[in-house]
Parts: sequence; C-alpha cells; structure tokens
Amino acid sequence: MNHVEGGVCAPLGFKAGSTWVGIKASNKEKDDLAMIFCEEPCVCAGTFTTNVVKAAPVKWDRKVIDESDDVRAIVINSGIANAATGERGMKNCAEIAKGLSAVSGLREDEILCASTGVIGPTLPVAKILEGIEKIYPALDRSAEKANNAAVAIMTTDTHPKEVSVKVNISGKDVTIGGMCKGSGMIHINMSTMLSFITTDADISKEMLTKALTNVVKDTYNMVSVDGDTSTNDTVIIMANKMANNEKITTENEDYNKFYEALYVVCSELAKNIAKDGEGATTLIETRVLNAASKDMARKLAKSVISSSLTKAAIFGKDANCGRILCALGYAGVDFDIEKVNVYYESKNGRIMMVEKGVVLEFDEDYAYKVLDSDEVAIICDMNAGKEDAIAWGCDLTYEYVKINADYRS
Amino acid sequence: MNHVEGGVCAPLGFKAGSTWVGIKASNKEKDDLAMIFCEEPCVCAGTFTTNVVKAAPVKWDRKVIDESDDVRAIVINSGIANAATGERGMKNCAEIAKGLSAVSGLREDEILCASTGVIGPTLPVAKILEGIEKIYPALDRSAEKANNAAVAIMTTDTHPKEVSVKVNISGKDVTIGGMCKGSGMIHINMSTMLSFITTDADISKEMLTKALTNVVKDTYNMVSVDGDTSTNDTVIIMANKMANNEKITTENEDYNKFYEALYVVCSELAKNIAKDGEGATTLIETRVLNAASKDMARKLAKSVISSSLTKAAIFGKDANCGRILCALGYAGVDFDIEKVNVYYESKNGRIMMVEKGVVLEFDEDYAYKVLDSDEVAIICDMNAGKEDAIAWGCDLTYEYVKINADYRS
Repeated sequence: MNHVEGGVCAPLGFKAGSTWVGIKASNKEKDDLAMIFCEEPCVCAGTFTTNVVKAAPVKWDRKVIDESDDVRAIVINSGIANAATGERGMKNCAEIAKGLSAVSGLREDEILCASTGVIGPTLPVAKILEGIEKIYPALDRSAEKANNAAVAIMTTDTHPKEVSVKVNISGKDVTIGGMCKGSGMIHINMSTMLSFITTDADISKEMLTKALTNVVKDTYNMVSVDGDTSTNDTVIIMANKMANNEKITTENEDYNKFYEALYVVCSELAKNIAKDGEGATTLIETRVLNAASKDMARKLAKSVISSSLTKAAIFGKDANCGRILCALGYAGVDFDIEKVNVYYESKNGRIMMVEKGVVLEFDEDYAYKVLDSDEVAIICDMNAGKEDAIAWGCDLTYEYVKINADYRS
Repeated sequence: MNHVEGGVCAPLGFKAGSTWVGIKASNKEKDDLAMIFCEEPCVCAGTFTTNVVKAAPVKWDRKVIDESDDVRAIVINSGIANAATGERGMKNCAEIAKGLSAVSGLREDEILCASTGVIGPTLPVAKILEGIEKIYPALDRSAEKANNAAVAIMTTDTHPKEVSVKVNISGKDVTIGGMCKGSGMIHINMSTMLSFITTDADISKEMLTKALTNVVKDTYNMVSVDGDTSTNDTVIIMANKMANNEKITTENEDYNKFYEALYVVCSELAKNIAKDGEGATTLIETRVLNAASKDMARKLAKSVISSSLTKAAIFGKDANCGRILCALGYAGVDFDIEKVNVYYESKNGRIMMVEKGVVLEFDEDYAYKVLDSDEVAIICDMNAGKEDAIAWGCDLTYEYVKINADYRS
C-alpha cells in the first residue's frame, strides 16, 4: 500500500470543484460550496449521526443511499448546517438536487448533499444553485481541485484534511481517496464530522457498507474534541468499480486488503481531526492496553480522551495523572484499579506515572519534558485481558473557549 | 420554614473547628483542615462517588456508616485527595481516626474522614494529627467556626458555601445545616463534591438514608461543571435527635416536612456549586418541561447543562440555540423534535428561540440583553408529557482552562 496524491480525485473517474457563493459572508477568500462528481454510477454506503436531531441533508442522504443503487455526486456547503430547519430544510435538499440535475442530466436520486455550520438558519438556495452552475462545467480530476474542495468544506478547521492510498488487489491497482472536515462539535458517537471517501474499487454495496461500518468504529468514533455529537455527522463512501478488480462480494483476501486500505485512510483523517481540534496545541492519543474486552477498551480510551480536566492538564504540561485514573473510573466499566499502570509517552521520552493503581513519585522536570510535545500518548495498561483500543483527542485551551464563545460572528 | 444563620453549627449539639496544617503549602492564610463534632451520637447516612476509582476516605466512610449506628465526628482536609494511594491511603484514614480518638475519647468507628484535592500524593498524617490536637479543644458552636470550616474545605472554590434552615415538625423546631465545596471535577453521577449536613432531627437511619438518596437525585446529581466525576464525591448527613421531635420512622407528614427542608438545603448548596464552577461568570439553569418521563426530563436537562459548546456560547452571550437542540438530541432519549420549544430567560427578559423544532428569526440585540446576566435559564418545553427537571451548571470560560491547565501549582 502506498500513499498517493490527489485526495478524493485520486481514484479513477472522480472529479471535484468548488466556489464561493456567500454563505460565509465574512470570508470571500475561502470557498463555501464544493462538489464531488463521478463519471460512472457508484455503489454507495454511509454512516450518519446518532443525534435525535438530524439535519435535513442527513435524512436526504439516508433515503438516497437506502433506496438507490447508483450515486453520482455530492454537493457540500459550509457555513450553515441546514439543521433545525423543519420541512423547509428537506425542500432545500430537493432543490439542490434538482439544480444539479438540470445542469448535469443526473437523476435527482443520484445526488447527495451535506452541510456544516450554524444550526438554525435557512440555506440561501438561490446562491447555491448559481454556484452549482458555476462549478459543474469546471469540474476536473486535478489534485488542486480536490484540495480546493477540501478547503471549501472547512468551518473552524485550520487546514484541509486529505488522505489517499493505492493498494494492489489481485493484480489491479485500487485507489481510495478521502477528505474530511471537523474540529468542533466532535464526539465519539458515530461519524462525528463530514467525511467523503471515493474509490475505484469494484465492491458490492453489502461489503462496502460492512467495511465502512466497521472501520468507523475504530477511527472516527474514537475521536473526541469536546463531547458534543453534531446533528450533521456524515461519512459517505462512493465506489465506481473503474479499477476493474474482481468484484468483492465476500469477506475474502481482497476484502481484507480493501478494508486495511480504508482503515489507513479513515484513521489518518480521524487523527487529523483530533489534531485540528478547535484551539488545539497537542494531539493526545490514548492507548488502552490489555483490557478484558474490546468494548471495555474502547470505553476506557474514550473516557480518558473526553475528560476536560485531563485535556486542560495536557495543555498546561501538568503531569496531573490522577485525572486519568479518575476518567478511567467513570468510564462505566468495571476493572481492578490495583492492576492498572499508566505512562506518558512522546518523542521526548516515556515516564511511568501509576503502578498498580498508585501514583508514583516522579521527576517533575522529566515529566514536563515528555509532555512538552505536539503529540502525547497516554498509555493505560489495564492488565486484565488482551484487548487494546486507541482514541484520539486534543488539549483544551483558551483558544477553544474563544472560538466557541462567539462562533457565529 | 425559615433560613437561619450558623451553617453546620445551626442545629443543636454540633460544633466545628478548623486550622492550617500546611497541606496546601502555598496558602498559609487559608485553613486546610476542618472538623465537625457532635456532643451526642448521630444516626448517619451517606452517598458517595460512583467512580470505580474510589478515594480511601470514601471507602472508610462507607464502612463506618454501614457497620456503625453512631457517628460523632468528621475530619476533612483540602489540598490532597488521598486517592490512588493504595493500602497506605486506608492506613492514613485509620491513623486520623485513631488520633481524634486519642484526644476526644470517641471510638474510632464513630469517626468519618473526607479529603479533596490532588489525586496521587500521600497525606501528611503527622501534620494532620497535630492539627486535630489543636482544633479539638477549640471546637464551638459559633457561626464563625462553621464558616471557617466551610472555608477550610475549599480548593478552587471562590467562596464558602453554607445553608441552614429551621422547620417546625409537629410542634418542635428542627434545624438542618449544611456546607459543601466543589467547583471543578464536578458532574452528574452521584454526589459530585463534598457536602456535610447536620441536623438535630430525630429520624431513623432507614428514613434518613431514604431522604438523602432521593434529595441527591434532584440536587447534587443535577449539577455539572465539567463532566468529570470525582474519586472523592461525598454527601454525609448526621442526625443527633436533640430537637426532641417525635422520631420519624415512616414516610408520614413529618417525613415530608423534613424532606422538603433537606431539599431546600441541598438544592441551594447545589446551585451554589454550579455558580462557583471553576472560572464561571454565569449560572445556567436548564429547565426541561413536559417530558414524557422524569428520567427523560433529567437526562435531557443534564445533557444541555453538560454541553461544552452551549456553555461556551453562554459565556460569549451568543444566542446560538442550535447547540441546545443538538445537546437535547444526543441525550440518549427519544423525542419528537417537531414538538420542542426553547426559550432563554433571565432577569432582563425572556425570548423564544425555537418553535416546534425550528430555530426562529430573532432580535439579536434583545437576545444579547437576555443573555447578559449572571443567571440565565434555558427552558426546553418538550410538549411530550408532564414531567419536569432542573439542572444547574455554568458557562465555560478562559479562566476554567487556566485553572485546570495548572491546578497543582
């Protein structure tokens, strides 16, 4: 498996485009409307927010993916979430699909849409339709267009997030490309942001859905920035079979290779989201080792990564590891504290902080040095079984508060 | 029912005292060791943290309360939590009890202890024993001593928290007094801080336990500052029967009066904790109205009060009410968003923000005015039933991050 250039345009047959239509009125330099378009019909799978309050595009996409076997395009806007907008929200999704249908000849049920931004306001559909007319004729397969699209879907993100890999499956090159956005309102229940993945693999809808669902559990669902689960969380994958590999219809060797490549794309995008958490200065990786079950390992890792007190302590490079024990303790999982060891690790070194549940005396200067890094791992060895899990998050900073105290202006 | 002066010393028979022994070395002006002492044996009930990692004093107190029918005193220190301290932690509780026993003649199993502060370090027991010898002969029933004790148990609290009320029960004056501390590491699963309540009521252990357990559900357990559930959370009530009322042994009229008075003490202390949340500038009260069940009402109210994004928006006086809908949506409760109305309310006015699930156009200046208050209510009318719940919290500020980025120094 190799990393390649090109983001969502890296696989055969996929084009991208974007433009500025004025949804984020304050920022004319940054596009706010993006499109992914495929020359051929795609098999498609999606996972969506578990929030009871679902944005209109989430409902629209769920229906299209469930009822249609071909998907050809996704229209994505940033700035307004099209959530808590009632019937009008759904009508706006239909109008966007109709608009792209009119210029492209696609059927409306081949078109997905996605939105991210402020909850409440209504989408300026007329502007979006003008934007679609502008983007469509200029779509192409360049890495530049893919990158522009990744920029256009950003909200408080500080940089675009793209990953693409190439993998050989039974003699054919199969490519998977992905882009995502997300840095606030991110938590661990499902999808957790917008992510769009393209591939030229030939794979059945059933296997594609299975691969996506399982990969999401260990990647996007293991990221927490602030404990808030958005109304718009969406992960969509489109597969257009242009790689000409033997169609994947069972969990065979080819499936495993595809799965592994998809895991790489999603885990790197997920880490990128955590690292770009609102106001973040440090990527925190929590590794829970030797838990009694996979589910327990995931819950423990998520609990530590979600603890505001732990996150604030990492920001301060304060080796206050009692907060880690505390967060393990309220994870909703039973364990024997007297078996637990805890370590900090970074490129600057490794230090044992807790042995058999007791906080050790430690060298403050060395602990500070270990924590003084832009990537810090918290390792919790439960000594209770054989299952591991990794979760990603970031430190809690003044900047997070600043961003969210006045997000709309 | 009247509010009276005196805190934990307001009921007959209770004395308090405090001193500085150097656990919080940096602050010689603030006492760090406190004691509550009763002239007569007390019936006692307690609720404690649900965290799997329980501090030594939590385990000590649980055992004393379960096994003993008389309790006479509580020794409380701030600065060090005596948590994650292994066997040595329990030994230190025993030594503290032994020390007070030596100077007072109480049995060791009549003595409770409680700690709050940094998780990990070992208690300086020799200093604490010296402190006990100093406090014991100076104990008295003055409001000043009660207040000093309330100050001594503070950590990042900015002011002491005391409430006391007098209620007439079948012709006798019964008094309930309480003090508590807590402003960080506070969340909604059980107890959530240290709280000590004294009363001269005559009440059976069974009824006292029942009253405390139920009151805690609607008071301390409805407070959230930062989502972290501490290892040391403790609520203890001691009843010495000196009011000479007819002993309460069933859920009769007298029980109801006692319950109501206990609710007032605990809800005012709980609100006080929320208001004094680390770095807080605004008390947020979430009122969920007309939910389908009490349990759902509580979960919805807690979810909104715990949302970092909602808390940061209130700090910024930003009427970003989509975040409230979002937090309702991930509460883990099913409801019909199309029935939900949301309002902001404060002493400056009231504004409807969401009607039947749709965010309304609103007057930004007026919304700002409503939010520009040190107490703001978020009212969520679910229109789904008849059950209400209230939760308390505070805004998320730069100061919260500052306090927790470097708590130990």
